[in-house]
Amino acid sequence: MSPWKAAQLGDHISQIDTPSLVLDLDAFERNLARMRLALQGSHVRLRAHAKSHKCPHIARRQIELGAIGICCQKVSEAAVFVQAGIQDILITNEVIGSTKLRHLAQLARRARIGVLVDHAQQIEALSAVAMAHSVSLDVYVEINVGANRCGVAPGEAAALLARQVVANSSLRFAGLQCYHGSAQHQRLPQDRAAAIASAVEAARISRQAIESCGINVERITGGGTGTFLHERDSGVFNEIQAGSYIFMDRDYSDNQLAIGDIAFEHALFVRTTVMSRNASNYAVIDAGLKASSVDSGMPKVWQRTDLSYIKAADEHGVLSTINAASVNLGDQLMLVPGHCDPTVNLYDEMICIRGDRVEAVWPIAARGAVL
Amino acid sequence: MSPWKAAQLGDHISQIDTPSLVLDLDAFERNLARMRLALQGSHVRLRAHAKSHKCPHIARRQIELGAIGICCQKVSEAAVFVQAGIQDILITNEVIGSTKLRHLAQLARRARIGVLVDHAQQIEALSAVAMAHSVSLDVYVEINVGANRCGVAPGEAAALLARQVVANSSLRFAGLQCYHGSAQHQRLPQDRAAAIASAVEAARISRQAIESCGINVERITGGGTGTFLHERDSGVFNEIQAGSYIFMDRDYSDNQLAIGDIAFEHALFVRTTVMSRNASNYAVIDAGLKASSVDSGMPKVWQRTDLSYIKAADEHGVLSTINAASVNLGDQLMLVPGHCDPTVNLYDEMICIRGDRVEAVWPIAARGAVL
Repeated sequence: MSPWKAAQLGDHISQIDTPSLVLDLDAFERNLARMRLALQGSHVRLRAHAKSHKCPHIARRQIELGAIGICCQKVSEAAVFVQAGIQDILITNEVIGSTKLRHLAQLARRARIGVLVDHAQQIEALSAVAMAHSVSLDVYVEINVGANRCGVAPGEAAALLARQVVANSSLRFAGLQCYHGSAQHQRLPQDRAAAIASAVEAARISRQAIESCGINVERITGGGTGTFLHERDSGVFNEIQAGSYIFMDRDYSDNQLAIGDIAFEHALFVRTTVMSRNASNYAVIDAGLKASSVDSGMPKVWQRTDLSYIKAADEHGVLSTINAASVNLGDQLMLVPGHCDPTVNLYDEMICIRGDRVEAVWPIAARGAVL
Repeated sequence: MSPWKAAQLGDHISQIDTPSLVLDLDAFERNLARMRLALQGSHVRLRAHAKSHKCPHIARRQIELGAIGICCQKVSEAAVFVQAGIQDILITNEVIGSTKLRHLAQLARRARIGVLVDHAQQIEALSAVAMAHSVSLDVYVEINVGANRCGVAPGEAAALLARQVVANSSLRFAGLQCYHGSAQHQRLPQDRAAAIASAVEAARISRQAIESCGINVERITGGGTGTFLHERDSGVFNEIQAGSYIFMDRDYSDNQLAIGDIAFEHALFVRTTVMSRNASNYAVIDAGLKASSVDSGMPKVWQRTDLSYIKAADEHGVLSTINAASVNLGDQLMLVPGHCDPTVNLYDEMICIRGDRVEAVWPIAARGAVL
């Protein structure tokens, strides 16, 4: 990590060393409020996905505002949040390997821990480790609801796994994981609606197959920032797993919204400085792909339609400029990252600003927790 | 970071928790030897680029084997290496901003520090901070040798900056930075040769313009893993800045080699586990884009031509499989990252193996040093 801090409390934003990850607290809090309002009065609870922020300060804010708990993507990530006092965590992933299983069981001594399965072998391994550590684990059967990644086929295959879970006294069958990842960034609202309609149907027939075995399906969980209103209104889902809504990255803002969709606002930025300006048609900034992940495309320059981020090297970003006078050496700019989750994962802390002052610096405690 | 270690010394490789960054020491050492041999007997010295590895253990090995020093891309990265005892560092970047300049000057008290300029304003700022801290800085004028990123035009523009550097008593004009980034991954050897021929000409006319002002050009530095033999043989360059040669990523191995080119071998891997296997034509592994950076394309699966990495999500990788029996749940595989530098930057340590045993665990001390 950098041997010095990018900012001190009370600093003016122009004093922030760059490139840095900056959270606009006003925008962030408005996003939290928007989500709370969206779920108010519904029977659907938020289980916020913490892989987006990896930050216990944010997890606590989400729970204070009504989230039932959090999701993590990795056991080591969950361990960081348990250490920080979070009491209800669903690891939205299959967990393979003896080291990870041992840590998973140890976490279940200190918090309520859920985990996914999509294969009989995983259930055997979970049962054995839970028994060996005298703990109970919540187990969710993951359904392939259309993304063709993890998950079993809907219906009978899901029921077979649920019956196997129920047969193990150290495991508690908690419900179904029905997350449709590839639906989140479909640009057209009707395409997202169609994908989730199909996911809802997959969840419904899986629930039916399991209930017909006399097994109760307590939770059906899934949904992301791009689609969660459909899951909310499905009559089938009762938990949503949105994560990016707090930050909103460029990729999500490229989605077209339907009437009634919620316009979350950009709250997460990479602050950067112009470090070279020797051509009339481009400028070079100090934020490259080690400062803003480009897996989902380039960042955009915030509130500067005259500047376009066209190329990222490790530690350089090239901006095309419409006119020669538009930007000068030493100017600071704000970027909206292409993809918030892997961008957050590049930093050890986020600089939290309110207006033009640094109000807090929050450690990204689970940064790099990939095991 | 992860709250537990991915491996212990002496572990068999099958015991390494995944996903993890793994360095094959035998292959790494053969790569070090290949580079040493390539420069032996030439007047060209290696100044190894440490942005690739961010690891003091590796920097020391490179210097023991004859490297004159290292390059860093950021002041904070250089600070980590100075702290680890490295004595000669060129920051291959323009440095803007008062905080960074202050740290740069402080480093120059403890090591020989070089830095680039491509604008008069940068020279003024460097001169002021060096004077204020009573230190001397090596200053290199960066030439735009064809990549259209940082750098001034070759020739008179370079001479103007060199004269300005020489006029400041706290600065020492050290030479020219002539790195052609975009040439490194041109796939055809003749295209790389042509790009570097043009870079050499840009360096030559810049040197001539500066020397005609009576200023000595001590060093002409540049060249990367994809092109360094051309710089070595140019008669103009006397330092090369290769970094990736120690690791060799998938992107570099996609370059076609000419006769006489050096075939560095893959030494850096991401070890991964199959965590879901519910379809005959694909498998899901636990290494996604937070485990292997995809900015330069997907990783490849090492020594498994029957498996192809087709899609990366945050913590999932999808492999297409030619036949259903080719890979099983729980199998471990090795990936060759698409791009080594940003992949290394995702990890806190690298697991160093020799044969099938863990011999060392090296901290990636400058991971995340982006300031």
